[in-house]
Amino acid sequence: MLNKMSGWDDTIVAIATAPGIGAIGVIRLSGKEAIGIINALFPSKDLSKQSSHTIHVGFLKENRTDIDEVVVSIYRNPKSYTGEDVVEISCHGSPFVQQQVLEACIRQGARLAKPGEFTQRAFLNGKLDLTQAEAVADLIFSNTAASQRTALHNIRGGFSQVLKQLRESLIQFSALIELELDFSQEDLEFADRTKFYELIAEADEVTRQLLDSFRLGNVIKNGVSVAIVGKPNAGKSTLLNTLLNENRAIVSDIAGTTRDTIEEVINIEGILFRLIDTAGIRDHSNDVIELIGIEKSREKIKGSDEVIYIFDVNTETHADVQAAAALLQEANPNYLLVGNKTDLSGPDTAAAKFAGEDILFISARDKFHIDLLRQRLVDKVIQGNIHAENTIITNARHYEALKEVGNSLRDIKTGLDNKIPGDLLALDIRRCLHYISEITGDISNENVLDYIFSKFCIGK
Amino acid sequence: MLNKMSGWDDTIVAIATAPGIGAIGVIRLSGKEAIGIINALFPSKDLSKQSSHTIHVGFLKENRTDIDEVVVSIYRNPKSYTGEDVVEISCHGSPFVQQQVLEACIRQGARLAKPGEFTQRAFLNGKLDLTQAEAVADLIFSNTAASQRTALHNIRGGFSQVLKQLRESLIQFSALIELELDFSQEDLEFADRTKFYELIAEADEVTRQLLDSFRLGNVIKNGVSVAIVGKPNAGKSTLLNTLLNENRAIVSDIAGTTRDTIEEVINIEGILFRLIDTAGIRDHSNDVIELIGIEKSREKIKGSDEVIYIFDVNTETHADVQAAAALLQEANPNYLLVGNKTDLSGPDTAAAKFAGEDILFISARDKFHIDLLRQRLVDKVIQGNIHAENTIITNARHYEALKEVGNSLRDIKTGLDNKIPGDLLALDIRRCLHYISEITGDISNENVLDYIFSKFCIGK
Repeated sequence: MLNKMSGWDDTIVAIATAPGIGAIGVIRLSGKEAIGIINALFPSKDLSKQSSHTIHVGFLKENRTDIDEVVVSIYRNPKSYTGEDVVEISCHGSPFVQQQVLEACIRQGARLAKPGEFTQRAFLNGKLDLTQAEAVADLIFSNTAASQRTALHNIRGGFSQVLKQLRESLIQFSALIELELDFSQEDLEFADRTKFYELIAEADEVTRQLLDSFRLGNVIKNGVSVAIVGKPNAGKSTLLNTLLNENRAIVSDIAGTTRDTIEEVINIEGILFRLIDTAGIRDHSNDVIELIGIEKSREKIKGSDEVIYIFDVNTETHADVQAAAALLQEANPNYLLVGNKTDLSGPDTAAAKFAGEDILFISARDKFHIDLLRQRLVDKVIQGNIHAENTIITNARHYEALKEVGNSLRDIKTGLDNKIPGDLLALDIRRCLHYISEITGDISNENVLDYIFSKFCIGK
Repeated sequence: MLNKMSGWDDTIVAIATAPGIGAIGVIRLSGKEAIGIINALFPSKDLSKQSSHTIHVGFLKENRTDIDEVVVSIYRNPKSYTGEDVVEISCHGSPFVQQQVLEACIRQGARLAKPGEFTQRAFLNGKLDLTQAEAVADLIFSNTAASQRTALHNIRGGFSQVLKQLRESLIQFSALIELELDFSQEDLEFADRTKFYELIAEADEVTRQLLDSFRLGNVIKNGVSVAIVGKPNAGKSTLLNTLLNENRAIVSDIAGTTRDTIEEVINIEGILFRLIDTAGIRDHSNDVIELIGIEKSREKIKGSDEVIYIFDVNTETHADVQAAAALLQEANPNYLLVGNKTDLSGPDTAAAKFAGEDILFISARDKFHIDLLRQRLVDKVIQGNIHAENTIITNARHYEALKEVGNSLRDIKTGLDNKIPGDLLALDIRRCLHYISEITGDISNENVLDYIFSKFCIGK
């Protein structure tokens, strides 16, 4: 079922720019009455007679009282973001003035928009599918080059395109099955069975790649948490400062990070790394395990995406490091052993001392091999997977639906293996198509839509 | 000297919307290369061929990498805010994406704009005079209906108009003097001397009204501080809460208010009242003067625009109130006596008890006469002076220059009285015209301009 309604009776309005004082603020209207509402407030020109994609400067007035001198942009349906008539009012950026403009529009009959309602209307009017709509929100909340790129790729329909191909393969497969069904009395096999298998294997492979990309997508969208652990005086703080200093210019604030566990955020090659402090272990260091500096931080280590174990190559023994690695392997196998303070004895001495271990030798103080450490962190995470042309799943809703797509595909394959009747196969194919349609929003229910759009800004 | 340069070589760029996440953000360019710069980043259409006041949707790209899907508005000189070519780029409201767009424009040759530089260019290109430019900043920082109205009045040239008339009177006067000078050998008096006096008296009256409006202008722009004083248990907190509760919906946050002295802000009829807590006096109340609750708060009382002295009509004697009034008169004559707790004995009893005093009787608990108290506060401040058609001075720079205008006018009048030669009178007239031109910016120096525009937002 296509869920493409149109023709709402009401016109929505919202402030579309960030809250606070700016040079300008933008108020956006969408709906049948958008142009009528602004026209009633704009005495100097008849806006109802202006063409689409034009700009008009004048005073906004209500009952002969000036509200502001504004710039009005007109977009006529269907050539607008929502597909309806859209008006954007650019006013002076005082929050008070923006509020006055908003309230005047409401008094003229507009209704305050719900979060994401402009994009929701765009979706329901068929201007974009659900994956594109969701990418709009991702782009607005993007804070790195990687998350920006992924969101833009999907706004352009990158993910939609992959799903479309997947759907076409299935429909092609379905057509072959139908053909066979028609002639089933004659016990003919029109299509080569291997062609069936190929189509399913291909769809399965695409689905698996998308599912695999989710870990990376999550990293791009939410960043990577890195626990830095090690004994007291191993050089954790120095390493942290070195990583931060190099990145000071591009350190970002992330809304909602819990300041008591997450210490600092750095951006390496467009990926956010949240460096988690484990300095708390410093105070209680009486028994052996405690000294390794891991036991106390076990929870943080388990909860992190990556772990850096840093140690002093001069004081730590080979056995110490092996013990630490064993404990880490158990708690979180995504760890990296980093031998620090090679400035005191030289990296070669350290390499000889710890021969056979996969250790990156650095000097946090002299910034030696810090570039390698940064590269190792990035490589561990992306494994060369971020390219503009790759579709990367960043959305848990897509991930869950794709898992169902994968399950259906395996059911189809099992059915083929067991030579089940074509009409039963067709059921599985329909189930598979259903989940694909759920992702693109060709099938959707109001609760899902409300949930998706509630995460948007107001005004988008 | 008219200071109307034009033709800067560089093109400026800035983010024009408030910082933070919004549905959309706007980046603004102004200068000769504005359209060229955006055109280099906008491959889907040749923007150099588009007419003024048109809107174009497409992808912004740099070296084949997508930056964002944007809406570009084009304004061609001189039909733009600055009088130069102006381009506004409306992008997705992620701070990261906005920064990317900004940086791409800078890489294409734009320079980051200084605060207020767009408006400064508008001024220097003769699109608005200095009083209008300053009103733009006032409007952006306006947070009440009154400050919005005053700023809009001046953006429309309300103040400029008054100054223009003042200037014309002086030039007319000057012409009469010159005429006399030409025929001075013949000892003729062409113009009626009384006509001279009338012109000067008229100019003087206009100047005085403008100067008088500054107190009100200041109130409109900066709000009114009100110290609420009184003995412990007089009902200060109840009154504060009553005033606040009625106003909860329109209470505004004011940036830069010092939270340790200013307690709460309420908006009554578009004027901000900052209610100053004097509750600290509660703890030390041993001697008589201290009990009146004034001595300890003397500094706050002196520093406030208005003072409310609140007392319990049931426990306070007539002599107590007279003593308080005497102390207040000395510290700050802008006080209001408020007799509280009339709910216990009735307002008539209280009126009889304190007969002969100018007291407003209220019950903070029952919200009795709170409306009258609010009205009294507003009346004391505006004295009926806020009308859309009235020009109100809100700017200290204008006030200082107008004082000089007034001084020059009085010098002219003294000169007339003393029958000084016409060429000396002409000097005073020129001095007077000089100060008027300083206000409108027809005469200006770079330091003054830099100071004025440095108080603007970036992007305006």
